[in-house]
Amino acid sequence: MTEIDPIAGLAAHARAACLDLARLTEVPGEITRTFLSPPTRDVTAYLSAWAHELGLSVRVDAAGNLRARREGPSPDAPTLYLGSHVDTVPNAGAFDGVLGVTLAFAVAAALRDTPLPFALELLAFSEEEGVRFGVPFIGSRALTGTLDPLLTLEDARGVSVRGALEAYGLDPAELPGARVNGQSVGFLEFHIEQGPVLQAAGASVGVVSAIAGQDRLLLDFAGQASHAGTTPMAHRRDALAAAARFAVAAEDLARATPGLVATVGVMTARPGAINVIPGEAHCTLDIRHEHDLVRAGALDTLLADARRFAGERGVTLTVTHKMAQPAVPMDPAFRGGLRRAAARVGQLAPDLVSGAGHDAMILADVMPAAMLFLRSPNALSHHPDEMAEPADVEAALRLGVAFVQDLAAQGTR
Amino acid sequence: MTEIDPIAGLAAHARAACLDLARLTEVPGEITRTFLSPPTRDVTAYLSAWAHELGLSVRVDAAGNLRARREGPSPDAPTLYLGSHVDTVPNAGAFDGVLGVTLAFAVAAALRDTPLPFALELLAFSEEEGVRFGVPFIGSRALTGTLDPLLTLEDARGVSVRGALEAYGLDPAELPGARVNGQSVGFLEFHIEQGPVLQAAGASVGVVSAIAGQDRLLLDFAGQASHAGTTPMAHRRDALAAAARFAVAAEDLARATPGLVATVGVMTARPGAINVIPGEAHCTLDIRHEHDLVRAGALDTLLADARRFAGERGVTLTVTHKMAQPAVPMDPAFRGGLRRAAARVGQLAPDLVSGAGHDAMILADVMPAAMLFLRSPNALSHHPDEMAEPADVEAALRLGVAFVQDLAAQGTR
Repeated sequence: MTEIDPIAGLAAHARAACLDLARLTEVPGEITRTFLSPPTRDVTAYLSAWAHELGLSVRVDAAGNLRARREGPSPDAPTLYLGSHVDTVPNAGAFDGVLGVTLAFAVAAALRDTPLPFALELLAFSEEEGVRFGVPFIGSRALTGTLDPLLTLEDARGVSVRGALEAYGLDPAELPGARVNGQSVGFLEFHIEQGPVLQAAGASVGVVSAIAGQDRLLLDFAGQASHAGTTPMAHRRDALAAAARFAVAAEDLARATPGLVATVGVMTARPGAINVIPGEAHCTLDIRHEHDLVRAGALDTLLADARRFAGERGVTLTVTHKMAQPAVPMDPAFRGGLRRAAARVGQLAPDLVSGAGHDAMILADVMPAAMLFLRSPNALSHHPDEMAEPADVEAALRLGVAFVQDLAAQGTR
Repeated sequence: MTEIDPIAGLAAHARAACLDLARLTEVPGEITRTFLSPPTRDVTAYLSAWAHELGLSVRVDAAGNLRARREGPSPDAPTLYLGSHVDTVPNAGAFDGVLGVTLAFAVAAALRDTPLPFALELLAFSEEEGVRFGVPFIGSRALTGTLDPLLTLEDARGVSVRGALEAYGLDPAELPGARVNGQSVGFLEFHIEQGPVLQAAGASVGVVSAIAGQDRLLLDFAGQASHAGTTPMAHRRDALAAAARFAVAAEDLARATPGLVATVGVMTARPGAINVIPGEAHCTLDIRHEHDLVRAGALDTLLADARRFAGERGVTLTVTHKMAQPAVPMDPAFRGGLRRAAARVGQLAPDLVSGAGHDAMILADVMPAAMLFLRSPNALSHHPDEMAEPADVEAALRLGVAFVQDLAAQGTR
């Protein structure tokens, strides 16, 4: 009789489940599943059935998160949380978020018959992408007790978060019951990288060192529109010339600063005619780094540059700071555990920074949190062609199971 | 009895006539008078009455140009042409074009009793701005026999140039009769500068050395849209980064090249989200200089820059050359005459380049042509606040009259 390796089959199941869930969509022909949209009920049904097969108890909390639980050896045993989100951006791929949920289920399946000194709770967050209400992490905020201030936010049709929960049949008064309760071992989230780093490194998986902090700004440059032919260079107040120079400075500084990314994603000029010097230019800046001091220093430099470029041209500059979000380092002990588990299963698992926000960032406020990234072929994400290779899913599962086994062997902390 | 200086009064009349004509508009409350629009008939009536007062014969040619003529001493005497255009851009000022017509009338008035060895023809071109048919100089092209290829152009309502002429009561078959006939002394056009050079020089008037040549181009940069957080700088194919660097290079090169103006008037990035690296960027270039070789060299440099900026970023570049128009030097003898006349009347009249096209550029194909610019306060033009100061109008008229007197004293060339 051949020995059967259960991990390969469970990894295949986790990946196939993503493709199953991809069929649960608001928009036929694409994958679109926003917060509490009708297909959310089908996702709950699908995951509940799976949880029951695994002998787990299931509940949907007051924020719509599905929580499948294996109790610990005693009522006061701490809980290890595994999971990610099941909402998607419009016209999404099949793996962003969802793979972190199905891999959590696969870890529980692999360890079904292994005694653990802690409880295990699988989390399928109802909202992470921020599509419906313009603010992300509605699901994970419920676990940290930080959702209340957002209940009055309204979606495009004027429905509030509170109203959306009620319309779905949930009771916002029960939100306190969604909070993390009792001791936590920590939270581990699997997620596709959504970037090119692991592919370039030839690695299936990577250990997230930190979720980058980020600033987002709007820059409005106001000069004087005038005739492109009759206005000599020395007499111009060209708003776009200042804004373009700012975009170049942002790229130059980010290239020269290890780990810094800076992006000008929006750029417009008004009046916007081929033969008129722009009197107004509008652009944005998105700047991220894993160390807040590096990010803050870079932002100061770039804003000083922008003011200088404007001043040199008789252009005024108005800066609107839309977002300032500190970096969130991942838990050092969990990171060390992931690295040791990677060595044990023979996986290269380089450190990398997450340039995007994730639920682990929210849970890090209340417990040790860590993330394992899976290689994103061609860095595609938020795109129908988004992919996770079967071998990479298997590597992630093998590493995740080894990590939980190691935690169990250490006993509860 | 005090000696009366007729020039001051005639200059005041020329300026007041601009304000009279400003009331003849398609759009109540603003000055808008496009090619062959209804108020054009009122302009013709106004100028015809004035011409009759001056003892001039008047006709409207087949392109709608008003032509007021004082015959020469003999049927074969050459003709000196003076004038400009009477159409306007939408929501225009009162002086662009029109002042060149009313000053031509004022010159004729000033010299009414002065014997001249040439005929004098005052021209009020029906079209110069290019608003209705997207192509300028319809009026002056009729005088050089180059209008025929444009007769099939259509306006926004599908009316052709030919149809517009016929609807106005003109006969396109008679266009050959609009051509310049017989010997020409040359053409002098008064026009507001539409730029800041004369104001900065403290001069009422200036002598145009050349009408700048110009190129207009569209540049389309195509890279790869990707996530602003998860895509390290080295992995980006940022189309806007290439386009912004091109805009900076254009400004830098123009600032470093005397007389060159380069303008990026349009700049857009797609998809245009604060947290998405632009996969596409689109911009324009308008580049002008009085010397074609300088302009061509600068354009070559900038396109090589653009290709390099694109190539360095894995971005492709598509360039569309929308316009390539050679520079038109003004007639050296006429320019010398204007400078001598300026000295005689005690006016500073610096040389300057016209960055915009003018009817003189068209007539330069068939006769000596020259332009005298009047100071534009605050460089305003194509704007309701466009202005010509009374003292500057008087200076221009005094200089123009002296110039024609000098030409007359030289006899016909």
